[in-house]
Amino acid sequence: MIKHPIPKKRVVKKTSMSNLGMTLESDIEITNQFYLETKRAVIYKKPTPVQVVNVSYPSRNKAKITEAYYKTPSTTDFNGIYRGYYVDFDCKETQSATSIPLANVHDHQVKHLRQITEAGGIGFLIVYFKAHNEYYYLPFEVLERCYNNSLKGGRKSISYKTFQKEAHLISFSLNPRIDYLTVIDHHIIPKLKK
Amino acid sequence: MIKHPIPKKRVVKKTSMSNLGMTLESDIEITNQFYLETKRAVIYKKPTPVQVVNVSYPSRNKAKITEAYYKTPSTTDFNGIYRGYYVDFDCKETQSATSIPLANVHDHQVKHLRQITEAGGIGFLIVYFKAHNEYYYLPFEVLERCYNNSLKGGRKSISYKTFQKEAHLISFSLNPRIDYLTVIDHHIIPKLKK
Repeated sequence: MIKHPIPKKRVVKKTSMSNLGMTLESDIEITNQFYLETKRAVIYKKPTPVQVVNVSYPSRNKAKITEAYYKTPSTTDFNGIYRGYYVDFDCKETQSATSIPLANVHDHQVKHLRQITEAGGIGFLIVYFKAHNEYYYLPFEVLERCYNNSLKGGRKSISYKTFQKEAHLISFSLNPRIDYLTVIDHHIIPKLKK
Repeated sequence: MIKHPIPKKRVVKKTSMSNLGMTLESDIEITNQFYLETKRAVIYKKPTPVQVVNVSYPSRNKAKITEAYYKTPSTTDFNGIYRGYYVDFDCKETQSATSIPLANVHDHQVKHLRQITEAGGIGFLIVYFKAHNEYYYLPFEVLERCYNNSLKGGRKSISYKTFQKEAHLISFSLNPRIDYLTVIDHHIIPKLKK
């Protein structure tokens, strides 16, 4: 008889995209908390939308959700007010050193950010290039051009070179951690006032 | 033997406060959808925050939440952009014909709306007096005065008379259903521009 080798259980490493996303997200939440405490801006992360199917009431005042599913958000994750401007953005990260795939950005997010910028708000992405340990502020106009180009059969990602040329490097420190409002001060608001 | 009457099953009517709240909320969501489609404003309801405790994966791509609890939101329910202004509000309703109890408005909501108005945003409440079938736009300043007064031992509610004098009646129609932006046009933005 032939002895088949016993397959080893595959150990799935927990360093998945979603975990990394959580870190970037929580760094931005810590940044926003600092902005709030120093009265610089009022910006919050929206809760993740959940479709509740079943709720039980084990005690009178406490509802326990026993069946629910994550829903696709219709907007971006973060919004708020800064210097009187409406601010709206999402955060993304990439493992690649050379680009971020546009598959990371959902159609409805592009549509939402377009509506925001058309209405006079400040819309953008914060993109983390893990390989370079760099955070970039990507203005919506650059995102939109690359996105539209991809719809016409062009490149399906935004290159790191595009970020170096057309996005703004965000400084990272202890407090504020990911200081994207300083980018807005220097590069975005002066253009809006023209 | 004494025959005890068989107790009838009590039928609990489903016209509770929470259901009514849902109607007001969904009327505002329909209004916002109309504003969005007519390119007048981009305003969304934030998802209800949920603390997820347990998730199972019955199939590869679908996460099923099996234990979760509702969390207290740290902000108000609605925000967005209108005519370049950041707009932020919550909706409340009262069964009473003469007042709305301040217990309906949470401390953190007052704090949040104060931060918003201090930052140059437009903060307010939409209050539905069911007994009168009237919707009111209550500016944050009026809410804050009544709230501060209640903290000093004053009245624990806002009277209907205060609404008649200092709030703005919102017209109700088919589309837009609860037309609060027209109140902002007539009564709020002109004051901001002084």
